[in-house]
Amino acid sequence: MTDSPLGLVEIVGTGLVGTSIALACRRAGIDVVLSDLSAEHVRTASGLGAGRPKQADDRPVLVVVAVPPDHLADAIVAALQDGDAFVTDVGSIKSRPLRDVTERVDAAQLGRYVGSHPMAGSERSGPLAASAALFDGRPWAITPHATSAPGAIAAVGELVALCGAVATTLSPDEHDLAVARTSHLPHLAAVLVAGRLAGAPAEHLALSGQGVRDVTRIAASDPALWQQILGANAGAVTDLLGELRDQLDDLIAAVRDDEREVLHRILSAGVTGTRAIPGKHGGPVRPMRSIFVSVPDNPGELARLFGDAGEIGVNIEDVHIDHDPGRPVGLTELVVEESRAEHLLSALESRGWSTHR
Amino acid sequence: MTDSPLGLVEIVGTGLVGTSIALACRRAGIDVVLSDLSAEHVRTASGLGAGRPKQADDRPVLVVVAVPPDHLADAIVAALQDGDAFVTDVGSIKSRPLRDVTERVDAAQLGRYVGSHPMAGSERSGPLAASAALFDGRPWAITPHATSAPGAIAAVGELVALCGAVATTLSPDEHDLAVARTSHLPHLAAVLVAGRLAGAPAEHLALSGQGVRDVTRIAASDPALWQQILGANAGAVTDLLGELRDQLDDLIAAVRDDEREVLHRILSAGVTGTRAIPGKHGGPVRPMRSIFVSVPDNPGELARLFGDAGEIGVNIEDVHIDHDPGRPVGLTELVVEESRAEHLLSALESRGWSTHR
Repeated sequence: MTDSPLGLVEIVGTGLVGTSIALACRRAGIDVVLSDLSAEHVRTASGLGAGRPKQADDRPVLVVVAVPPDHLADAIVAALQDGDAFVTDVGSIKSRPLRDVTERVDAAQLGRYVGSHPMAGSERSGPLAASAALFDGRPWAITPHATSAPGAIAAVGELVALCGAVATTLSPDEHDLAVARTSHLPHLAAVLVAGRLAGAPAEHLALSGQGVRDVTRIAASDPALWQQILGANAGAVTDLLGELRDQLDDLIAAVRDDEREVLHRILSAGVTGTRAIPGKHGGPVRPMRSIFVSVPDNPGELARLFGDAGEIGVNIEDVHIDHDPGRPVGLTELVVEESRAEHLLSALESRGWSTHR
Repeated sequence: MTDSPLGLVEIVGTGLVGTSIALACRRAGIDVVLSDLSAEHVRTASGLGAGRPKQADDRPVLVVVAVPPDHLADAIVAALQDGDAFVTDVGSIKSRPLRDVTERVDAAQLGRYVGSHPMAGSERSGPLAASAALFDGRPWAITPHATSAPGAIAAVGELVALCGAVATTLSPDEHDLAVARTSHLPHLAAVLVAGRLAGAPAEHLALSGQGVRDVTRIAASDPALWQQILGANAGAVTDLLGELRDQLDDLIAAVRDDEREVLHRILSAGVTGTRAIPGKHGGPVRPMRSIFVSVPDNPGELARLFGDAGEIGVNIEDVHIDHDPGRPVGLTELVVEESRAEHLLSALESRGWSTHR
């Protein structure tokens, strides 16, 4: 049924991430047992095909702990003491839970533990939002400590692979520095900008365009979860917020005094930063190009467009539709490999589509 | 040919926004003449069907000035002194150009001017990126001054309507306060976060997920344009950056000292702020829901999905595809009206699609 060396997997915590991992394991033909403080979550996840409730005599070979940050260490310790399984967790912070676990288990138990962290999630939560495809092509950090057993590391690597994610190995400390920069700082910047919108006059907010929507989207996430994440990575986050404040002071002075050279330097560093983000799936950035097609706002028209693109034989990498349902025509952006864009444009035009470069 | 009361329209500045307005006017059957310091831009825009190059004896009834912020006042004054047309501009800042223009024209000339500002743009620039649909459903501020002639205000209102945008009337000062909050502050926050990525270790950047990409996207915009925008709105921007700094100080203290109540308050204000942004097209927010479908990564499969959705009769409001071209299956997110989601899900499942809620 499976060619994976993984045997029975236990998922502790059947929220969005835990249930999604369970679904990915089931997709690969691996047996999964589920446990959660909420029996309802277990029933829901089980009903979605994510596995069966754990029984007292189940002996998993790998336990995946997917609980909120404040409960990570307790759940990891319990899993290490409960059997002889390898244990990993999928928490957003790696150093502090490791420190807590190290104080509470013996050396043999500690060796069976290796932390990990999939860089996938959602503003949504709970098992109903889960998907076996949540991790497809996403980064997934594996964070061994000094005495993690090779077998434990290999088991987690198997899990990452069957979830379709891209493994990156980092020490727990390096991981926490990395997510402070790539996740926690962007999150807090979004929160601060969104906070400036609350209470603003409606006629000011009426001018909101796509930019402010994109910048603030992640600020809609659960405050209770995020205060735990930030609390557990306070050192790295505080350091980066300090850097941000120094740069903000420079920026305030430059805007106030119209120091155009300083402003240009700060703005240009931002451009450089956007280019430093690697390609979406961890690989090199392939050159892409957007083409734009006017599409009448009827249920069948998008189908006709994609049908034509399919017949033309050009793979569409991404799509954005921007239309007002009250208007007859919307603009559809098709993102394709640059080398295929001209062919698609001319072929669509010859089929009567109105395109814009 | 047209039922619009607008006669000949002149577009001064054939970049992305100017050419897009010209294309929207032509779509409505209105004659358009084009002028630009760059003869090549005029030829390109003209070749795209945006209008013809302006001749000496052309007498437009409305001049639309679409030049960079530093050149706005000069171009507006020149247009007011050159004939008897109504004049508007589409600059990102409204108070300072009005002040400059007021000092340099007589009362009759000033009466023919009314500022405006479409909230649409792109990281791309130039006439080749233009589209008649750029403004569809977008906010477009109209900013009359105390002596703007009713005819001038009406002409700009006509222009906004034929571009398919949603007009919002504000005083120039109110406008500049509004965009400081909804555009300039988000932009600068994105710049500061992106600036922290430049020079970060590659293994840290490898953990970049969708959140940091969304937060930093607009930081890729042209620094030369943005230093002009910020310079022209320095007062309002400096005030808001000061607010941001005060809040940042509170945040740093709360993270450093693990003050969970303060953290929760700041994070919750962010959630409230994201909810304050009005519906995408200025109307009330209609409840939407995302459903997820696994789609094999072949050219014809998306077509089949959209074909099925079209036959099922549910209109798709937005689409996001997230897949690794190296993998056989990608996850496609379909955004539909909440009331239609269950019907679409069950109908797609009955056609053999693998869906996730």
